[in-house]
Amino acid sequence: MGPILSASQLPGRLYGISVGTGDPELITLKGLRYLREADVVAFPSGRHGQPGIAEQIIAPWLAQCQVLLALEFPYVQDETVLQVAWKKAATEVWTYLKQGKTVAFACEGDVSFYSTFTYLAQALHHHHADIPMEIVPGVSSPYAAAAALRIPLTVWGQRYVVLPALHQLHELETVLAWAEVVVLLKVSSVYSQVWQILRQRNLLARSWVVERATHPNQVIYGDLSDRPTLQLSYFSLLIIHNSPPH
Amino acid sequence: MGPILSASQLPGRLYGISVGTGDPELITLKGLRYLREADVVAFPSGRHGQPGIAEQIIAPWLAQCQVLLALEFPYVQDETVLQVAWKKAATEVWTYLKQGKTVAFACEGDVSFYSTFTYLAQALHHHHADIPMEIVPGVSSPYAAAAALRIPLTVWGQRYVVLPALHQLHELETVLAWAEVVVLLKVSSVYSQVWQILRQRNLLARSWVVERATHPNQVIYGDLSDRPTLQLSYFSLLIIHNSPPH
Repeated sequence: MGPILSASQLPGRLYGISVGTGDPELITLKGLRYLREADVVAFPSGRHGQPGIAEQIIAPWLAQCQVLLALEFPYVQDETVLQVAWKKAATEVWTYLKQGKTVAFACEGDVSFYSTFTYLAQALHHHHADIPMEIVPGVSSPYAAAAALRIPLTVWGQRYVVLPALHQLHELETVLAWAEVVVLLKVSSVYSQVWQILRQRNLLARSWVVERATHPNQVIYGDLSDRPTLQLSYFSLLIIHNSPPH
Repeated sequence: MGPILSASQLPGRLYGISVGTGDPELITLKGLRYLREADVVAFPSGRHGQPGIAEQIIAPWLAQCQVLLALEFPYVQDETVLQVAWKKAATEVWTYLKQGKTVAFACEGDVSFYSTFTYLAQALHHHHADIPMEIVPGVSSPYAAAAALRIPLTVWGQRYVVLPALHQLHELETVLAWAEVVVLLKVSSVYSQVWQILRQRNLLARSWVVERATHPNQVIYGDLSDRPTLQLSYFSLLIIHNSPPH
């Protein structure tokens, strides 16, 4: 029994699984396979008592025997608060990994692209450097939005920029002087100021807003000309097809 | 029989299906479902008698009864030559669509991101505006490469730039003065000049090259310090984690 016990003391494998943007069919075959094989399935807990996006996506694919682990990641900017949350989440995940159990973390969008998984994995590796880890890439929101709109996101040699947050409006002006395609993630809080810039540059007819791309509650705003203000939810992005000045 | 004949004269549906970057398991469930349901499966033909990447990815998933349609898209920059090729491909696809058959075009990476599908769809719609079309997003190479490297591609508020081709080196200098994360697609022809810039800026230890991400022939270059030159294939990209000046 010695070798078997010893083997069982090796930490379990951690999977970072991209589950896509909302439509449960946009998970990859690999992501689904790892998800179903995992002993424990972790995901960011929802807000206001509602299941989160990743949780909604994976719900149809889970087996009854799997342990579900909702991890708290507060929606705040304060890094001290977040550090505490990441450490707590890492401790919860480690409880299973140290027993040799496989843990799959399901993450909306792509797991490498502005994702909570990064901080969870870093907090885990800080204390346990030898955890075997595998990452499964997936569908991220700019692609999902372009598909929903049936427009190309980029063509030819177009320069492509993603701004995950826009803290100063002059930054958008700088980008529009240079890039042909610009995507603003989480655009809700700055939408009306962005609209003014797009109007000045005559770009409203070549800009689109997509809320919750591919999710059952997806909303598309295909012409922004008459929409100086919009009440948008957190997962809203704006795509700009810019006319380059050269 | 009248109504039935009439219905059969409606054009078939065209699917643009993102099949991911190389690993056949990185197709989405939706992409696979549409692929298998299609009467005709089209894809870019390979070069030098070898199957192309999309063709390799979909090979395990096809049924014997499906018509396979390899479409020629020459690897040239000359738009006149390309226009002829796109028109010819559109004519071939239309042969099936006009019979009411479903055509799925399989495209490596994501179908909205610098993809041949865009030109095929435009050539088709130029003559037949009423073709029903659906797009399935997928895994694109920057995400696949980050997953293979087990690094985050982007975190927090990092500005993210993709340059599909680098025609002038000063453009990279401009981007590095501003963006935190830069991805250069198809980097093979400019690699040695890019390496010099990365060395000057002390970025070699935070830059990675991935050839054919997730493909069985994937190659990773995780430290570029001792690699001033590299013989790279067409599907090679470079990820730079840049230190912002502010």
